[in-house]
Amino acid sequence: MPQSPEELKALVESELERLSLWPQLHGQAESVRYGAVEMGGKRVRPVLTLATGEANGASVEQMLPAALAIELVHNFSLVHDDLPSLDNDDERRGKPTVWAAYGEGPALLAGDAMLAEAFRLASRYETAHVARELAQATLGMIGGQYLDTMVEGADLETVHRLKTGCLFFASIAMGLWAAGVPEDEQGPWRAFGDELGMLFQVVDDILDDDGFVVERGVDGARALADQAAERCRARLAEVDADTSVLREIVDSLAVRTV
Amino acid sequence: MPQSPEELKALVESELERLSLWPQLHGQAESVRYGAVEMGGKRVRPVLTLATGEANGASVEQMLPAALAIELVHNFSLVHDDLPSLDNDDERRGKPTVWAAYGEGPALLAGDAMLAEAFRLASRYETAHVARELAQATLGMIGGQYLDTMVEGADLETVHRLKTGCLFFASIAMGLWAAGVPEDEQGPWRAFGDELGMLFQVVDDILDDDGFVVERGVDGARALADQAAERCRARLAEVDADTSVLREIVDSLAVRTV
Repeated sequence: MPQSPEELKALVESELERLSLWPQLHGQAESVRYGAVEMGGKRVRPVLTLATGEANGASVEQMLPAALAIELVHNFSLVHDDLPSLDNDDERRGKPTVWAAYGEGPALLAGDAMLAEAFRLASRYETAHVARELAQATLGMIGGQYLDTMVEGADLETVHRLKTGCLFFASIAMGLWAAGVPEDEQGPWRAFGDELGMLFQVVDDILDDDGFVVERGVDGARALADQAAERCRARLAEVDADTSVLREIVDSLAVRTV
Repeated sequence: MPQSPEELKALVESELERLSLWPQLHGQAESVRYGAVEMGGKRVRPVLTLATGEANGASVEQMLPAALAIELVHNFSLVHDDLPSLDNDDERRGKPTVWAAYGEGPALLAGDAMLAEAFRLASRYETAHVARELAQATLGMIGGQYLDTMVEGADLETVHRLKTGCLFFASIAMGLWAAGVPEDEQGPWRAFGDELGMLFQVVDDILDDDGFVVERGVDGARALADQAAERCRARLAEVDADTSVLREIVDSLAVRTV
């Protein structure tokens, strides 16, 4: 019986809590832990990875390194994006951001360490494919952040597909490799992963009143979100597995209010 | 006939020049290229990786992803360390540092992208061991940078072993995995890799008139360097392979003046 999204999220939370950081980080580990664990988060990417694994018959233990790796890369991106030289945010989810709490230098190193920890986790598998997917997604995300912050008038859909979509795609793709799904059976899954980021980001824009809402109004953005959710469901229907938990995640992403 | 250190360095230089960065980086690729290629460097770490591969009968082609990956991680560390929130250096090797040339935000992202590109290269191998060694070394290096910049009175040898030693060790260890050396034959090589960083860093301190020179005077530091070089030669002598090129690199590291 596959676990519910809430059960998977609780599992991610407790595994993050007890994650052993590399001992040579010394005191740097404190701000890493603050940014990756204490700041909280929806944990939606690692839940997707775990659910992808369960749908493919893999054990949770087998999936956890990949799931935690994708969450650490997400958190790394927040820690660096919050820095004064990029978005200059001193608060996130009601808490001081890492640089506001620990200083700019330590926050810079904390982000670096999260990224390196993510690759340490992703390279615990025998195959290098898990780490390779993560590296490619990270590069796409960085390209998206570049377009978003440095290029006036960059195409919004391109920015979203890179900045948000790449990591969502990787949360599925890494899950496939971690679960041992052969490459020639990954196609329908990858098509699903490709749509997820847009669904998440359009709803984000609606909740934050920016992005697609500015471009197309609330109704236009809502229509986009509904179409993205429909495409996700259609892609999932083409996958030859029990994808009920993933379907549930898609449904809740479409109507989420936080 | 193994290639000389100079030939290997020229090869690293030309392969860095023609390295294809991930296309989704978009315009961010420019500052990555500036920091990783145009800023130059001694390229000693990738040369060590290539020489380790040659001594183990591997082709240069087989070794290049690992060699370029270790150089990119080294360059990532320089780009981030130079930022105003850490060392605040606006010049390196007579050129503007990445943040001085492109701004702080782009330099932050450039370093992130170099680290991710490094893992993309390291995960091109079938085995994840190459990427795993790189991740562990990167974490150690970050811990060393933390001790160096944030902890008053941190033990100098510990700082050097982490900040410099970890990457030197990885330049050998990654080379072993990339060359397909079985784990149970890696011991003597790893012992050699373990000594390299100290040799490099003590000589650095002598050239820069800091670190061990401040702690023990020029003569004391020189004696340390000689002992480190001796230990490197002794470890190499225990390796069952033609290590003449590596011996040449050790000899030149011991007496280098730049």
